[in-house]
Amino acid sequence: MFDVTRYATAAQSVIEAGRFLYDRGWSPATSSNYSARIDAEHVAITVSGRHKGKLATDDVMVVDLHGRAVQSQCKSSAETLLHTVIYRLFPDVGAVLHTHSVKATVLSRLVPPGEALELEGYELQKAFNGVQTHEGRLTIPVFDNTQDIPALAEQTRLWFDEHRAQPGYLIRGHGLYTWGQTMDDCLRHIEAFEFLLECELETMRVRP
Amino acid sequence: MFDVTRYATAAQSVIEAGRFLYDRGWSPATSSNYSARIDAEHVAITVSGRHKGKLATDDVMVVDLHGRAVQSQCKSSAETLLHTVIYRLFPDVGAVLHTHSVKATVLSRLVPPGEALELEGYELQKAFNGVQTHEGRLTIPVFDNTQDIPALAEQTRLWFDEHRAQPGYLIRGHGLYTWGQTMDDCLRHIEAFEFLLECELETMRVRP
Amino acid sequence: MFDVTRYATAAQSVIEAGRFLYDRGWSPATSSNYSARIDAEHVAITVSGRHKGKLATDDVMVVDLHGRAVQSQCKSSAETLLHTVIYRLFPDVGAVLHTHSVKATVLSRLVPPGEALELEGYELQKAFNGVQTHEGRLTIPVFDNTQDIPALAEQTRLWFDEHRAQPGYLIRGHGLYTWGQTMDDCLRHIEAFEFLLECELETMRVRP
Amino acid sequence: MFDVTRYATAAQSVIEAGRFLYDRGWSPATSSNYSARIDAEHVAITVSGRHKGKLATDDVMVVDLHGRAVQSQCKSSAETLLHTVIYRLFPDVGAVLHTHSVKATVLSRLVPPGEALELEGYELQKAFNGVQTHEGRLTIPVFDNTQDIPALAEQTRLWFDEHRAQPGYLIRGHGLYTWGQTMDDCLRHIEAFEFLLECELETMRVRP
Repeated sequence: MFDVTRYATAAQSVIEAGRFLYDRGWSPATSSNYSARIDAEHVAITVSGRHKGKLATDDVMVVDLHGRAVQSQCKSSAETLLHTVIYRLFPDVGAVLHTHSVKATVLSRLVPPGEALELEGYELQKAFNGVQTHEGRLTIPVFDNTQDIPALAEQTRLWFDEHRAQPGYLIRGHGLYTWGQTMDDCLRHIEAFEFLLECELETMRVRP
Repeated sequence: MFDVTRYATAAQSVIEAGRFLYDRGWSPATSSNYSARIDAEHVAITVSGRHKGKLATDDVMVVDLHGRAVQSQCKSSAETLLHTVIYRLFPDVGAVLHTHSVKATVLSRLVPPGEALELEGYELQKAFNGVQTHEGRLTIPVFDNTQDIPALAEQTRLWFDEHRAQPGYLIRGHGLYTWGQTMDDCLRHIEAFEFLLECELETMRVRP
Repeated sequence: MFDVTRYATAAQSVIEAGRFLYDRGWSPATSSNYSARIDAEHVAITVSGRHKGKLATDDVMVVDLHGRAVQSQCKSSAETLLHTVIYRLFPDVGAVLHTHSVKATVLSRLVPPGEALELEGYELQKAFNGVQTHEGRLTIPVFDNTQDIPALAEQTRLWFDEHRAQPGYLIRGHGLYTWGQTMDDCLRHIEAFEFLLECELETMRVRP
Repeated sequence: MFDVTRYATAAQSVIEAGRFLYDRGWSPATSSNYSARIDAEHVAITVSGRHKGKLATDDVMVVDLHGRAVQSQCKSSAETLLHTVIYRLFPDVGAVLHTHSVKATVLSRLVPPGEALELEGYELQKAFNGVQTHEGRLTIPVFDNTQDIPALAEQTRLWFDEHRAQPGYLIRGHGLYTWGQTMDDCLRHIEAFEFLLECELETMRVRP
């Protein structure tokens, strides 16, 4: 069981995130999925295949931390396990966002297989929780895309269990995952990632 | 004869599509044309030369599936036959959209004559009806531009009769055609195409 | 003397054009100037140095076809003569717009001195009055920038007197001039030009 | 002591600037900071770490020209001294804006260490106070990024004391600083800088 007021608050934060992210062009064509934690056992998450710029209350549902629907006949996002694995790994995480921007998609295909994207020397790295200076380096792993979500969830669990300070990851040809303690933190991380990915791409255009 | 309520619904979907597509910059300078099916014999289609971001009810008219005006003195889009040929070929298609984006125009001129644009490895390919994985390949033919619309209509009919699963095509230096069972499906296809075309162009900028 | 109702209509079309063009990013930082014809002898034109996205009635004034202020103490745009020379040359022109987009600025600097920009094979060329096919070629001259406006006005007069079908020109490192019979025509020309200039720049990025 | 009505006016100009600059994408992810002069001794400045598109009255505070908080328990922007050094150096400056655009970030990293960005031949250079022609040259210094703000403040003081006509500077991998007599002047300078930086980047893409 979960508190319905906490559910309503979480669902509303997902709906508003969708409007923002779709308007930026980062969740086109019913792609992407978003979630917000309700409590230690439950998260509110988008129903599969909905228009992310027009989410309403019936486009959000509840799953437990194993990705099973709770009090709902709907089918949650196909990538639900990529969300729940993060909530299990980080008890203080309150929101997970997955977006599909052009920049994330293109850059994830340009990074050579087996390599991560390394970001350094950007002041905006300080937008990530816990980062105090531009002098550090962020390592953003790029996982190969697959339709086998349980396998990918396990891959991300292993990687982030060993690199707990890193704020997100890319899936090749697919998109970005990031998280935060609150939805506001998580949206700030999305903005920072999109900014940094665009900087990297802009630089590669001039110096391929 | 056609049902006027179905006509009004179809016309309204065309008007709203125009507002969306113009705002995105995909139908500049009175370019583009849009249609929605009324019934087995009739479609609502834009009148020639109108501003696509400001369509009103008198900017939409009815044609039959041979492109002839029905109950109207207006002149329908010069490319009406490119719409009707699709409705005849696919009885379940409910909407056809033709847009003129910078990305579609530029990419269609960069694809060598006689070659198609091949899209693969993108998660967003799943936005097209019937596509379940990023592992397949979409083939987007590029037809040479011409002012001889009946000839181009016949060319597209022959090609799509043999490649019924492909979701759209480009005309060189001109734009994109795509369709769907509903206007929402068709708009999702436009968004997916624009996303994928931008990804391809972005990649070519870095790796020409 | 001029008809004040015709003046108010012309001024309003200038104000609304400004809102549109500024929102697109084509008239940043108080750059650009716009005009609309009142009658055979007078045009409404923007006052020098105003914010183009926030034009009000006192940001528009009247000049005669020699660029002299009429019934006004304001100073009209420094480039007033570039407008009036077009109205004198083409009695059917009803509006002249000058914009400062990034694309126009960059492309005008990339075209070699003494050469024009040639546009061909684009369907969108049909957006210009009188163009019926993509098979023709538009020649867009690029004049060197100067603060000697009377000299530049004379240069444009000589060129367009000999090439009356061409729809506009660039000034190097500065911007675009185009015109039309009505303000709507002129705005359509701006949209078409911006589209075509972006296509050309996008193509040069991939195939320098 | 300062006049509270002058404070309210200054604070409101900061709030509105934030809305504009965030909407343009120039202040993402709580980055950037803005200030407006109240009088010879005081400036209104953004509180550290706030969302720049949603500034309210409690996101702005007062500091003196040595960067010390006045009548406030809040912590002002970490870069407060970069603002106050400009107000001390230029008694006629009424506003200072610092933004974090992709273009400024990327370009500041592409300029070789020890070199400045030189801008010439652009008509839009006239958007800067005191510039009458495109024929001059603007020199935009690029300072290395550091978390030692007092040292950077001193560096900028020395440079601008010797180059008082130059309108702003870049910090490598970080962003842009510019100023003006009024907030409107300062916003015009931001727009002009963003335009010119984009022109430079666009040109480098085609001619690396």
